[in-house]
Amino acid sequence: MTGAAADAAYRDKNVLITGGLGFVGSNLAIRLVRAGARVVLVDSLIDDYGGNLYNIQPVEDRVRVNIADVRDQHGMNYLVRRQDFLFNLAGQVSHIDSMRDPYTDLDINCRAQVSLLEACRAHNPEVKIVYASTTQIYGAPGSLPVNETHLRKPIDVNGINTMAGEEYHIVYSRVYGLRACALRMTRTYGPRMLVRHNRQTALGWFIRQALDGEAINVFGGHQVRDYTYIDDAVEAFILAGASDAAVGQVFNLGGTEPVSLLQLVETLVAAAGSGSFIVTPFPEERRRIDIGDFYADYSKIRSALGWQPTVGLREGLEATTAYYRAHRRHYWSGG
Amino acid sequence: MTGAAADAAYRDKNVLITGGLGFVGSNLAIRLVRAGARVVLVDSLIDDYGGNLYNIQPVEDRVRVNIADVRDQHGMNYLVRRQDFLFNLAGQVSHIDSMRDPYTDLDINCRAQVSLLEACRAHNPEVKIVYASTTQIYGAPGSLPVNETHLRKPIDVNGINTMAGEEYHIVYSRVYGLRACALRMTRTYGPRMLVRHNRQTALGWFIRQALDGEAINVFGGHQVRDYTYIDDAVEAFILAGASDAAVGQVFNLGGTEPVSLLQLVETLVAAAGSGSFIVTPFPEERRRIDIGDFYADYSKIRSALGWQPTVGLREGLEATTAYYRAHRRHYWSGG
Repeated sequence: MTGAAADAAYRDKNVLITGGLGFVGSNLAIRLVRAGARVVLVDSLIDDYGGNLYNIQPVEDRVRVNIADVRDQHGMNYLVRRQDFLFNLAGQVSHIDSMRDPYTDLDINCRAQVSLLEACRAHNPEVKIVYASTTQIYGAPGSLPVNETHLRKPIDVNGINTMAGEEYHIVYSRVYGLRACALRMTRTYGPRMLVRHNRQTALGWFIRQALDGEAINVFGGHQVRDYTYIDDAVEAFILAGASDAAVGQVFNLGGTEPVSLLQLVETLVAAAGSGSFIVTPFPEERRRIDIGDFYADYSKIRSALGWQPTVGLREGLEATTAYYRAHRRHYWSGG
Repeated sequence: MTGAAADAAYRDKNVLITGGLGFVGSNLAIRLVRAGARVVLVDSLIDDYGGNLYNIQPVEDRVRVNIADVRDQHGMNYLVRRQDFLFNLAGQVSHIDSMRDPYTDLDINCRAQVSLLEACRAHNPEVKIVYASTTQIYGAPGSLPVNETHLRKPIDVNGINTMAGEEYHIVYSRVYGLRACALRMTRTYGPRMLVRHNRQTALGWFIRQALDGEAINVFGGHQVRDYTYIDDAVEAFILAGASDAAVGQVFNLGGTEPVSLLQLVETLVAAAGSGSFIVTPFPEERRRIDIGDFYADYSKIRSALGWQPTVGLREGLEATTAYYRAHRRHYWSGG
């Protein structure tokens, strides 16, 4: 199935996106509105989590925004009704915050996931559910590239809880027949990502520093990672939502090519046309939670759903820096 | 290290056991008291969970029982202080209950584990912690026997949350230097196991039926499993608590030999000298959560700590049925 063919599955359908004002949620919403879906966005706009009303500016008159917290079980019980699709993207994704406050991470990434699945089971058992998981649950890989059967060794509370959140979807699919699946996203970047602080993603912060003409502090520089451009990630959600073959499955996403941190920052500074970088040794306190090199094997989703990443790093970073140059005042501060 | 040598590590030491009035906790307490430890048992005696004051009858004057719930963060903050060892055995372990009420399972098996680890981190960072995990987190195995690097595919909410509970211990060990480890117990049986209802273990219920002279209903009968006798399981906790080599590690336990369900029930009826069994086809609704054959590879703990199971099934079931015959009125009803 191509993305264009998949788009037809959403025409005149009801779609709920949790975390809908966030990075991935808003980009997905824009795509779905253009495909003819009736989109409801649920977001609690918690400070610093990444939700931003400006993210949906291109479609703001064509979506319904419902400010609510996925931890609000009664609200979610109502909101899941009559939806054809549920893209479940609400989450606490900061690793640092998960260690500072493991309880909030647990409430959002575990308890709210259970209550959302219970809501679907009780009020809308036919809804198609796509859960946003992350390759970070693998921890330090034993071999590369990492496929879906690789041992998972999460390195922080956020990784543990996201792993559990994903497993609830798979268990509810197997035991109760819910039509749920999960995408393990690798590092994803692009317009509308959070650049306001550096607790969620290093790359968002680097982009901001490059555009501010600052020197980016690179620790080490040799760590290899893969990066998915947002349009590719959105395409994976579109395909997974539209395909019955995805039900009960977990799929890795991936990037066009693995790159070192040094290559990443060089490409960023070139794409931005501003900024610089300084390489310093890897600090000891980071070494304890370092995972070494990581990149994902995405052959399972390529075989099952025909997905693969198409936007290279230079092209993606040019589009990203161009976006923030044009819309900077909506992202540098405030939410 | 032998068990006897390990016992010396507990002489005049302070030991806290959560779930201390339960099956494993009480047997461990009896062993530790005999090794000269000062033992505090925390248990909330929740109906049907398995805690039973009669379990500690042989040492009741030599342990301190503190009725409290591990979800009580303030109580646990106090209780972990000045302990040398924490055997963390409190848990909701019924798979059926975890699907009926996933929130309670989450509160006990995830949230309370985080708060217990936070309590240790804040008030007793030197305490040695052994967490009781389960091989049930592996789900349906891809190959046999199952070692610790095998893919985990929990089949119910209880399996997911126990997996998370285990991972918190490992992450807190790696990130904060807590001296925590986990034992993945396989099916464990023996005196003081719960036989009051059949929602926790099938074997406990079978033992009760055999002693009542009833016909045990065996579904299928060919499913292979491994069973650990309680004294062997207690020995593993003793060794793991006493050994620095265990810190940050996860170990499978296992049984002397894998047996089919039919062999198990035949052995049980012979050991009890009463009861009978009827074999019926495997019901369709159980098939959805069936895991096929399972037995664990325990070579990691054998190499690292010198543990291996020593009590065969016939011997273990004879001791178990003899115990319940003698103490039946304390187990057939009430808690």
